[in-house]
Amino acid sequence: MKIALAQLNYHIGNFSSNVQKIINSIQKAEQAGADLVVFAELAISGYPPRDFLEFDDFINRCNLALNEITSHCKRIGAIVGLPTFNQGKKGKPLYNSAAFIADGQVKKYIHKSLLPNYDIFDEYRYFEPNKTFEIIEFQDRKIALTICEDLWNVQDNPLYTVNPMDELMPMNPDLIINIAASPFNYHQIEIRTEILRRNAEKYKIPLFYVNHVGAQTELIFDGGSLVMSAKGQVVDELHYFEEDLKIFELDDICNPEDIKIKDNKPVIGMIHNALVMGIRNYFQKLGFQKAIIGLSGGIDSAMTAALAAEALGHENVYNILMPSEFSSEHSVNDAIKLAENLKMPYDVISIAEAYDTLENTLKPHFKNLPFNIAEENIQARIRGVLLMALSNKFGYILLNTSNKSEVAVGYSTLYGDMNGGLSVLGDVYKTQVFELAHYINREKEIIPFHIISKPPSAELRPNQKDTDSLPEYDILDEILYQYIENRLGPKEIIALGFDENLVKRILKLVNMSEYKRYQTPPILRVSSKAFGMGRRMPIVGKYLS
Amino acid sequence: MKIALAQLNYHIGNFSSNVQKIINSIQKAEQAGADLVVFAELAISGYPPRDFLEFDDFINRCNLALNEITSHCKRIGAIVGLPTFNQGKKGKPLYNSAAFIADGQVKKYIHKSLLPNYDIFDEYRYFEPNKTFEIIEFQDRKIALTICEDLWNVQDNPLYTVNPMDELMPMNPDLIINIAASPFNYHQIEIRTEILRRNAEKYKIPLFYVNHVGAQTELIFDGGSLVMSAKGQVVDELHYFEEDLKIFELDDICNPEDIKIKDNKPVIGMIHNALVMGIRNYFQKLGFQKAIIGLSGGIDSAMTAALAAEALGHENVYNILMPSEFSSEHSVNDAIKLAENLKMPYDVISIAEAYDTLENTLKPHFKNLPFNIAEENIQARIRGVLLMALSNKFGYILLNTSNKSEVAVGYSTLYGDMNGGLSVLGDVYKTQVFELAHYINREKEIIPFHIISKPPSAELRPNQKDTDSLPEYDILDEILYQYIENRLGPKEIIALGFDENLVKRILKLVNMSEYKRYQTPPILRVSSKAFGMGRRMPIVGKYLS
Repeated sequence: MKIALAQLNYHIGNFSSNVQKIINSIQKAEQAGADLVVFAELAISGYPPRDFLEFDDFINRCNLALNEITSHCKRIGAIVGLPTFNQGKKGKPLYNSAAFIADGQVKKYIHKSLLPNYDIFDEYRYFEPNKTFEIIEFQDRKIALTICEDLWNVQDNPLYTVNPMDELMPMNPDLIINIAASPFNYHQIEIRTEILRRNAEKYKIPLFYVNHVGAQTELIFDGGSLVMSAKGQVVDELHYFEEDLKIFELDDICNPEDIKIKDNKPVIGMIHNALVMGIRNYFQKLGFQKAIIGLSGGIDSAMTAALAAEALGHENVYNILMPSEFSSEHSVNDAIKLAENLKMPYDVISIAEAYDTLENTLKPHFKNLPFNIAEENIQARIRGVLLMALSNKFGYILLNTSNKSEVAVGYSTLYGDMNGGLSVLGDVYKTQVFELAHYINREKEIIPFHIISKPPSAELRPNQKDTDSLPEYDILDEILYQYIENRLGPKEIIALGFDENLVKRILKLVNMSEYKRYQTPPILRVSSKAFGMGRRMPIVGKYLS
Repeated sequence: MKIALAQLNYHIGNFSSNVQKIINSIQKAEQAGADLVVFAELAISGYPPRDFLEFDDFINRCNLALNEITSHCKRIGAIVGLPTFNQGKKGKPLYNSAAFIADGQVKKYIHKSLLPNYDIFDEYRYFEPNKTFEIIEFQDRKIALTICEDLWNVQDNPLYTVNPMDELMPMNPDLIINIAASPFNYHQIEIRTEILRRNAEKYKIPLFYVNHVGAQTELIFDGGSLVMSAKGQVVDELHYFEEDLKIFELDDICNPEDIKIKDNKPVIGMIHNALVMGIRNYFQKLGFQKAIIGLSGGIDSAMTAALAAEALGHENVYNILMPSEFSSEHSVNDAIKLAENLKMPYDVISIAEAYDTLENTLKPHFKNLPFNIAEENIQARIRGVLLMALSNKFGYILLNTSNKSEVAVGYSTLYGDMNGGLSVLGDVYKTQVFELAHYINREKEIIPFHIISKPPSAELRPNQKDTDSLPEYDILDEILYQYIENRLGPKEIIALGFDENLVKRILKLVNMSEYKRYQTPPILRVSSKAFGMGRRMPIVGKYLS
């Protein structure tokens, strides 16, 4: 039996596009001799459809789309994910389902049993968990058809009290097919492969795994669909960060002669590719071509521009340099050099006059109080006004340039440099931004060396340096990582050897900045714990603050 | 047996404050002769603690707080809600628990069975549902101790497949105690009472219900704790929007002679009280005293200022009038009149110079393109810069003045009039804002009549009116209500008699504004479906847009 895995870049709610992609892959698989073609979890709706699922109209459109897809499956079997109504009288109104199509009709729906409801996942918000287990039969083979999380209960302290594969094994399946929506983070490929391996090894049957590829706002799906032998060897995998379709003969996977996958994926390269896809898909799916970026001469905006140039084409990234009286000469020169290295258009717009005027306007109301954060923020906010004015006038999307370390401690100006339609680096710690810069420069100088080597500064007052108010970034980032990604409390972090006062100060800064992060643009997620939908904190909370 | 219901205003994560309030109530109840004092769900942590729950350190602090509380219960029983660790090897790491304290020790933990995971609720994100049922015994009475949602499965199409009270009834409880965290919306009091009544009627035992009171960022808890007879009569209730403690003799509730509760609660008055408490608690819990508001002369900012004056004291609401060349004379006069009516401080700051300067700065880059939305937004954003500068300089919180109709269709400027630490009216449709104005003016003219009677305008270009680009608000709000609150699709709304093109245009506006709402301040929630944590939509989604 020949099984095709179709790894596609869906667009949430864009039924015409999703259906067309699915039908194209059905035809391609059929022409290449496949018996069965497998699509991802909730392929028809795109993932995550979020509260669109609360509209009956949306579910009905998913069902209409399935009808159209089914009509193209006269000579090939197909498995495709979509939300369906729970016909029972009790429980949540929907199931997260896989439709099994053969002979031009839907033969069976298999519903998801284990519903992830942590981090960025909210599936129990919509779906009733399946509690009755059955396998599907196709061309004399028995298939354990599972949906993503259904295979993720093989840990020592399982999150769920049921294990779907344990329920299915008594029916003697010949293989596992898992349709998934498993978003990227830089630990995820390793974890995902390990989880699939444990399943193959435990149940001793081969495994076919189909994931999404492409970005949906902040979530980036890396693809990496794969086939695994009953011994847990990854026999082959589909591309990362690209649509792909591959066909496998089941018997070859049962008895693999040739294991194609050996290499490790370098973390920083994967982050780079994820961010490029994240930018590109955000623009494509919203129907925009051009980005505007405020280029400060610092590493964060330089990195954002370099990634945008790769994602959108260098001619589509418009850079604005907005020096103030506190900007150093090298900042302007460094920024121009970057723009020239990447052949990106740029303009220099001084904020001096606007700043003077606003200072004058506010003078009678500021009561001769000394220069402080208010004046610093005015500079950042004038830049925000200028960038948004150009964005509105010409239809650019403003890209936000804050990194994760800044976003964490609130080292940024709300309605100023926090502006943007999308935050490119908001899940990338400052130390990782430097790593990314070296990666981008791996063949030649793209990010000017001076941008990488000089001490970071916001340049909002004379001779300002980030280290005036923050520790060195390698220390800051380690404390933040322990708190944010690992969710250690103050005692536990101090026990790792960090200074008690520093730890308490940093954790307090993080928790007191929650009100700012509430209004942050969506942040491309590359870590296991990104700010945004995956980290939900109270604003008026008083914990550690 | 005398049971005290303690309805308190907790502060999320502020253990010292929460514990002190609880101990004070224990002492007060004890002095008044109560045998048992009952506190709300997750009283120790405050509700909702959100991802604070993912920190072991946070759970440990809850447990320490419980120890301290327990040490004060030598002569009185107590029931208090807190999160506890799941000691089992399977399932989510926590339970949502009620500790039953007697004789100075925790006698038993009862865990919540039904975990709401819809709208603003995320409980399945953290908690394992309880599956074993037991009652507690105290002074020869058997108590069915349940936690909030545990009683909410009495509908015809129940959301959960288990009903805790059905499991508890075979143990012959004498009464139900329900500890809750049930936030306000203007339908909720009616629904909540009806749900409780169905329980009392079905199980034929009296019911003691304790809710939270007070606001936690966007969520407002109205209190309204109550005692209900076995026949489903509300025998008495605690105050709304205030802390309260009342003591009831169980036998009196079993055989009530006197039913104290008869009156209906007027919806608009409840919304008013909710918003005032929402503002007041946001400031108190963040440690701020003063608000700043941009007063346009329109009804939304006038209403925001009036509510803030009530919440914070008129002297603590600083109003800034920022006329532009498009502002009408009456706007300034109306705004001044409002400030004078309420004795609020105000200043007039012209944006003309700042606008001219920014226009000049941008002129070489705007390529002689005609005046459009870009210039309109510059005005709104200059106002945003001025308000935030004063906020930063003096430590005011900027209050956002957008109403729900505007927020829905995106009729507002990101980083301009969308700025603010808290949105007061973002869950109040424009037509409801007018109702609120009449309510506030019920005894005398506070909101100047001319502000109510004139046609709404953003005044960002000559002779602009809201109706230039939007339908009349009574039509707009009805379509929005059907779409947002009732989640009807376009076909269903058109079937109600609305124009097809209009419906499609409005729904498209709503869905295309998702990127703006992502960066909106937290919105005080008064409806059954508010923008914010209760409505989660994809930004790159293409549904209806």
